[in-house]
Amino acid sequence: MNRQRVGFVGLGIMGGPMAGHLLSAGHDLTVFNRTPARCDPLLERGARVGASPRDVAAASDVVFICVSDTPDVEGVLFGPGGLAEGATAGSVIVDCSTISAEATAQFAARLARQGVALLDAPLTGGDIGARNGTLTVMVGGDAEAFERVRPLIECFGKRILHMGPSGAGQRTKMVNQIICALNVLGMAEGLAFAERCGMDLDKVLQVVTSGAAGSWALANYAPRIVRGDYAPGFPMHLQAKDLRLCLEEIRKLGGRFEGTALTERLFREAAESGLADQGTQGMINLLRRPG
Amino acid sequence: MNRQRVGFVGLGIMGGPMAGHLLSAGHDLTVFNRTPARCDPLLERGARVGASPRDVAAASDVVFICVSDTPDVEGVLFGPGGLAEGATAGSVIVDCSTISAEATAQFAARLARQGVALLDAPLTGGDIGARNGTLTVMVGGDAEAFERVRPLIECFGKRILHMGPSGAGQRTKMVNQIICALNVLGMAEGLAFAERCGMDLDKVLQVVTSGAAGSWALANYAPRIVRGDYAPGFPMHLQAKDLRLCLEEIRKLGGRFEGTALTERLFREAAESGLADQGTQGMINLLRRPG
Repeated sequence: MNRQRVGFVGLGIMGGPMAGHLLSAGHDLTVFNRTPARCDPLLERGARVGASPRDVAAASDVVFICVSDTPDVEGVLFGPGGLAEGATAGSVIVDCSTISAEATAQFAARLARQGVALLDAPLTGGDIGARNGTLTVMVGGDAEAFERVRPLIECFGKRILHMGPSGAGQRTKMVNQIICALNVLGMAEGLAFAERCGMDLDKVLQVVTSGAAGSWALANYAPRIVRGDYAPGFPMHLQAKDLRLCLEEIRKLGGRFEGTALTERLFREAAESGLADQGTQGMINLLRRPG
Repeated sequence: MNRQRVGFVGLGIMGGPMAGHLLSAGHDLTVFNRTPARCDPLLERGARVGASPRDVAAASDVVFICVSDTPDVEGVLFGPGGLAEGATAGSVIVDCSTISAEATAQFAARLARQGVALLDAPLTGGDIGARNGTLTVMVGGDAEAFERVRPLIECFGKRILHMGPSGAGQRTKMVNQIICALNVLGMAEGLAFAERCGMDLDKVLQVVTSGAAGSWALANYAPRIVRGDYAPGFPMHLQAKDLRLCLEEIRKLGGRFEGTALTERLFREAAESGLADQGTQGMINLLRRPG
């Protein structure tokens, strides 16, 4: 592959390893992170550190973003010292954050006016997928820009699908999060029920994991609950945020989504009552509280 | 295995094939079904047909029951011409229906007074599991009686677990149904969301099926939804009934089970508004209705 000038903004649990894969593939990498210490491991491996997103954009033909929420992406793009100030016509920005689909389309339209393409490219596969370079990437936005950056996405993604116009990646991620959240709630209520009945959880899991109740959530999270491990994985406060984004979209779409409304309320309650930094399997701790 | 005198009451989608496996294993089989025509295929293969459950019990050392709900089991056991009238001391009744855990314990205590053991042994694995003899069987009740009938259960069951005293099988099944129902709702809301967004469902399923949103429900039911197949599988009205049983138990246990309460309400609404005989994947048809 041609060595390319690549930027990366947001070196968290996901972004850090993803940027590492781009570096390992031989690209010329410039990074920025709000907490500068997070840049150090990449700096030691030959990456440069920009003083601002603007610096990163000025040094790169393609810039990846991996931050938490809509206002964070807006700040990185259009705030003082933002990517928009440094990006040159013909460059591509790939936003791997999970944010509002509508805001994504607005950001893309705004950047298009200066000849910069914005792709939404949210991820699934978790911290493990980021470390192993096996993420699933759901891309929305200009198809030609997507084809140009696809080889870069392949540095950390295994399953990469172009879903449609700007925002389509975010909407696909929402489908994923709607299903995930209800699967996690099902697991938590099922185990909470078994606990209240005084059942042997290991034995119950032997029965339910392999049959029609089976799910990724049950297979991966239920054993952690049995051994009292509530480390994230995927933290409660981000699940709550993702579900809030789903509800914002649902408000525009219409329709009955009572399960999604319920999970949004429960994950938010959990996040606001001391469980924010537990993994989503901590939902059972909300259900265990005395009424 | 020793040839045994075995009875079977209730030859529906599940019971019919299960009784067939007992016959294939060489046992001396006597059957009863409310709709007599259902007995014919087994009659042709050498089974005898009893005129009542009492007749079946009188001719058998072990009797299986596989009917729909608590009052059905009560009628088969204690109604006029019921099993209790024909059962001899030392015999075992194995109830494979999914019914109330509390009623099960009461029925078992009542039969124990005449020296008859009642085991609750609800199933998971569906019509396919019944046909292939690969059901999962969750057993509650006297452990010694269970060991005696285990070789018979092995004629149709692959994973057979003794979960505890009378009712423990039913409570394990409830755990299974609580999780299943929320997984199905997650799948239905996820696909309904994708539809309202105008997304390509096949492409969306490629993304979500293999990752953290994955479930048995998604893998097995979502493709049926895509091709418009709403045949049961597991019919809506039985899912609604099973969830009603869960809520009855939850009322005694206490605790927060808002997801289970929601699925009970939605599956009941679906069953009462024209979707009773669709498979549970038909939940999406409830969600598709104009608000």
